[in-house]
Amino acid sequence: MPELRKDPVIGRWVIIATERALRPSNFKTDKEDRLTDLSKCPFEPGNEASTPPEILAYRRADSRPNEPGWWVRVVPNKFPALKIEGTMDKRGEGMYDMMNGIGAHEIIIETPNHDEEMALMPEMQINEVLWAWRDRIVDLARDKRFKYVMVFKNKGAQAGASLQHPHSQIIALPIVPLSVQEELTGALQYYEYKDRCVFCDLIQQELSDRKRVVEDSERFIGVVPFAQRFPFETWILPKQHESDYARTTRNDSLELAGLLKRTLQRLRGVLDDPPFNLVLHMAPLNTEGLPHYHWHIEIMPRVTRTAGFEWGTGFYINPTIPEETAQFLREVQL
Amino acid sequence: MPELRKDPVIGRWVIIATERALRPSNFKTDKEDRLTDLSKCPFEPGNEASTPPEILAYRRADSRPNEPGWWVRVVPNKFPALKIEGTMDKRGEGMYDMMNGIGAHEIIIETPNHDEEMALMPEMQINEVLWAWRDRIVDLARDKRFKYVMVFKNKGAQAGASLQHPHSQIIALPIVPLSVQEELTGALQYYEYKDRCVFCDLIQQELSDRKRVVEDSERFIGVVPFAQRFPFETWILPKQHESDYARTTRNDSLELAGLLKRTLQRLRGVLDDPPFNLVLHMAPLNTEGLPHYHWHIEIMPRVTRTAGFEWGTGFYINPTIPEETAQFLREVQL
Repeated sequence: MPELRKDPVIGRWVIIATERALRPSNFKTDKEDRLTDLSKCPFEPGNEASTPPEILAYRRADSRPNEPGWWVRVVPNKFPALKIEGTMDKRGEGMYDMMNGIGAHEIIIETPNHDEEMALMPEMQINEVLWAWRDRIVDLARDKRFKYVMVFKNKGAQAGASLQHPHSQIIALPIVPLSVQEELTGALQYYEYKDRCVFCDLIQQELSDRKRVVEDSERFIGVVPFAQRFPFETWILPKQHESDYARTTRNDSLELAGLLKRTLQRLRGVLDDPPFNLVLHMAPLNTEGLPHYHWHIEIMPRVTRTAGFEWGTGFYINPTIPEETAQFLREVQL
Repeated sequence: MPELRKDPVIGRWVIIATERALRPSNFKTDKEDRLTDLSKCPFEPGNEASTPPEILAYRRADSRPNEPGWWVRVVPNKFPALKIEGTMDKRGEGMYDMMNGIGAHEIIIETPNHDEEMALMPEMQINEVLWAWRDRIVDLARDKRFKYVMVFKNKGAQAGASLQHPHSQIIALPIVPLSVQEELTGALQYYEYKDRCVFCDLIQQELSDRKRVVEDSERFIGVVPFAQRFPFETWILPKQHESDYARTTRNDSLELAGLLKRTLQRLRGVLDDPPFNLVLHMAPLNTEGLPHYHWHIEIMPRVTRTAGFEWGTGFYINPTIPEETAQFLREVQL
């Protein structure tokens, strides 16, 4: 059973993935690119038996589960960091706190096409992926053991992807991750002081300045954050206040798909197909519409090696000027 | 002038290093190893003119500044993330807060020998490096604009090192980095509840369990943290309570040098010369001995690519069992 362990100083929970524990020799070759070739890809149509049985698929009416005919397919991670069965069993070990690593860890296979990528997909296909994210969030929220669902995507080996076939991941957790907790705490302080959502204020200022705006549609905005941590880091936010991604409507989703595609195309245009991490931050599950929090997507290209030391030092050095990166992104011809 | 910008949601400060701003084309080749060959190394004896004039050097009495004859040499970073001259000039831009990027950014050249590395250096040489860290901290603390000094070391290109010649770095900051602030806040909460230092308690429990102890000497302990974030992550702490690294005595320092060397040798033994980040966490400057905080060194080998997605998701998945990594490290023959 995987374990969740809490750092006694700062209260950060860490997943100890005991069931895929590696031995030292596993690390010695990790400097190599681990992307597999197409013939062995478990996400190819026809290779459905290489994954655990599907949880959800959008597929032709005449096709059968775990066979070809799907255009988006969700499966449990074959090497999950967390396990879906069992109880949390919170316990101590002296001063330390831990619990069983209960949770879900799923893979969203975004397309049957191995060589596709999100920036190049048709908007309709991206919309299907966004819809799969939402459907899984809604379903996982029914499990009252879970406090949080995180959707993320690692593109490229340097961003942590071990398979090239386009996919994103969902993790359901019995705890709220520290990075989201920090946002919730900061946003609540702002709300208590100003009686306004800090993200709504940020959107208003960006729309008025326009210096950091990368994409702008009726309901969504793509901006480079003022305190950008990484070169070309870009956030996407809904203009209207909403803490819960799952309340996205079908029309919202289609518009978001287009804006996300254009944002990724711009990053690709400036940076030559960069590896990146994408993460969806939303309110904790079952919080019923928070007035102070606002869901958003953060896209972080991994183009500097120096991104390495941030998690050691805790401070970020960005060797680009955020407003300049926004301009480079705007100038890409789509 | 570099800028410090504050994230309006979580209050994290980011350094925007405007003066070494990169253009998009700079990123396209960043996938390559950037370590330079020896002949061009600015840290070689004889190449002293390639660096800004030295701030401090331990050198033979018959040698002259900025010439060979040194065994440890401290110079300003030629491409500093922060500038030493000027005033902070705190200001707003609408809802955003920023200030000038005032600070120091220095390089400690740890040895004249290009191919050396800390794990292989004589203990006496490591002790000289530790002493240089301390001397620079004491000197930088006199500048009342600075609230924090962070010492860190990136070893290997994958850990963010752009030069192979052994070196560490010091940054003096007008703010306390968020990672240290989190530790200070958590440690203060523990102290208010228990009237004890959380790190002192942690050391007592580790010495009694011994499951996670890697190195143990009279005054210091090397342990794998209970909630280890990265495979083989190891911390070094003084056994006696002390928040201020600068109060290390000469004898402490010599003992620490030996324990640090053995810890790095163990990591090297298990992991085949791994890239790593090392960071010294101590109390903010001029805090006069905090009862709730305890200085320590964190060593984080960079052996998993998946280390990439932590700064996106804010949660850590460690694919090793901390107690097993401690055992592997203990079993290395020194």
